[in-house]
Amino acid sequence: MSLPDKVRVVEVGPRDGLQNESVSVPVDVRVGLIEALADAGLSSIEVGSFVSPRWVPQMAGTAEVLSALRPRPGVAYSVLVPNLKGLDEALAAGAREIAVFGAASESFSRRNINCSIEESLDRFAPVAEGALSAGLKVRGYVSCVLDCPYEGPVAPEAALRVAERLLAMGCYEISLGDTVGTGTPVRARRLVETIAERVPVERIALHFHDTYGQALANLLACLELGVSVVDSAVAGLGGCPYARGAAGNVATEDLLSMLHGMGIETGVDIGAVVEVARAISRHLGREPASKVSRAMAVTEVAVP
Amino acid sequence: MSLPDKVRVVEVGPRDGLQNESVSVPVDVRVGLIEALADAGLSSIEVGSFVSPRWVPQMAGTAEVLSALRPRPGVAYSVLVPNLKGLDEALAAGAREIAVFGAASESFSRRNINCSIEESLDRFAPVAEGALSAGLKVRGYVSCVLDCPYEGPVAPEAALRVAERLLAMGCYEISLGDTVGTGTPVRARRLVETIAERVPVERIALHFHDTYGQALANLLACLELGVSVVDSAVAGLGGCPYARGAAGNVATEDLLSMLHGMGIETGVDIGAVVEVARAISRHLGREPASKVSRAMAVTEVAVP
Repeated sequence: MSLPDKVRVVEVGPRDGLQNESVSVPVDVRVGLIEALADAGLSSIEVGSFVSPRWVPQMAGTAEVLSALRPRPGVAYSVLVPNLKGLDEALAAGAREIAVFGAASESFSRRNINCSIEESLDRFAPVAEGALSAGLKVRGYVSCVLDCPYEGPVAPEAALRVAERLLAMGCYEISLGDTVGTGTPVRARRLVETIAERVPVERIALHFHDTYGQALANLLACLELGVSVVDSAVAGLGGCPYARGAAGNVATEDLLSMLHGMGIETGVDIGAVVEVARAISRHLGREPASKVSRAMAVTEVAVP
Repeated sequence: MSLPDKVRVVEVGPRDGLQNESVSVPVDVRVGLIEALADAGLSSIEVGSFVSPRWVPQMAGTAEVLSALRPRPGVAYSVLVPNLKGLDEALAAGAREIAVFGAASESFSRRNINCSIEESLDRFAPVAEGALSAGLKVRGYVSCVLDCPYEGPVAPEAALRVAERLLAMGCYEISLGDTVGTGTPVRARRLVETIAERVPVERIALHFHDTYGQALANLLACLELGVSVVDSAVAGLGGCPYARGAAGNVATEDLLSMLHGMGIETGVDIGAVVEVARAISRHLGREPASKVSRAMAVTEVAVP
């Protein structure tokens, strides 16, 4: 098996995770969560988004979160920014990195942000430009890269078109999102092969939801192609396991278990992440969605 | 990716699953479960074991289960048999297939069945011989093929020695058990490569527990080596997710989702398996451990 020596894990629990939880988590708890994740060794953490609190009440107070975080050398805190107003707020709050996004599916783009893919990219171009000229780093997300909840299968070429546009805007990294979690190893691999024809593989990240329990298998198939950046959420945040199906991101601790077990370095302490997972899950009033966190709660067996 | 066209799924929920549940399930419910699994297209089902009910009360009544099952052409019902007394009972109940087992770890063998590996194999040899001479098929399990809960990592060669002995006894298939669920893709693959040096790959089956959420990734790595038989348990039976960690077998429906999503045929109807998973989980008073079953309960998205 050809695998990378190191993987950078991008922790998205405080943003993509919490924004999909039914319970809104207050600012002080979110700050504590993020500091604990950084203490555990996570060096890339998405901490919130500057979308309207009317749309996403869970992300209200992102400016306060960002301001409260202690700066740490080598740790990047990013925020999702949908428009120029959001960029202004992010800059005012001292953001050093933002993320912009586009969907690979026309229907999803229209239903999610009420405009076409093309219109959304036109809207993001000045956001990225403004951020770059202010010295910020910009990361790009492509959602629905494999399947769309409204259209079904998405052609890899559709994801590639959006990825190329985001790259042309100056994004340093393109994160490919299996938003629905219906991906399979064969299709995930074909997607990465297609994207890698035009995007350098070291600038490709994977962002897979674990709705159907397939995320680790899909990630493994893509790691073998040389991808070395993976998004994940502590405790599998983002999918209340009973109310809406376990639709969250792949759990950071499950990902770490696979990576460390194969001798791949991440710089992250899995035991510390499990502690964080338990703490935030207690706050949400449920068990972590992660099997590693559950298993470590009841067994003495050392985690790889 | 080099993958098999077809995979035979061996359903072990009614035995390995239920024997590890804290609730004992009555005979009539077990018979209904097995019939429903066969209706769903599963052609190999392990239905119980002839161990002492003092040790494993959950498997009491296996003779009644076996007698109550309607014979179906093309469907094999097997029972675990630990000794000659168990073989007599299995024969009396009309068994057509049995399974015997050995551990790859000395400590596990001693703690689990109170004898050395060598002694256990000596004890199983006449069981297999008796079964074969009565015209039965015999399947062999090797447990703790990757890690032992008492000793830690297990050398692939230790698993190979037991596999070869079981093969020499006349087992038609050797099922390699990651009993602890701490395996990783790299180690699982190395194990299969070692076993395949002496055991034809078409006679190798995989039996991975999903304690740490790694089973599908580990299975994927081994399918690429040509293995085409996988054990699984409907609903991920065998690990109450809260009381003891989610320590069950990989869920049949999660496995089917991966296999079907890659175009691999199994002959099994995943929708029907999800129905069975929900029914038996209701009986046990909990949610299925399977993400596919949970997701299908709340979403309209088609499962691959």
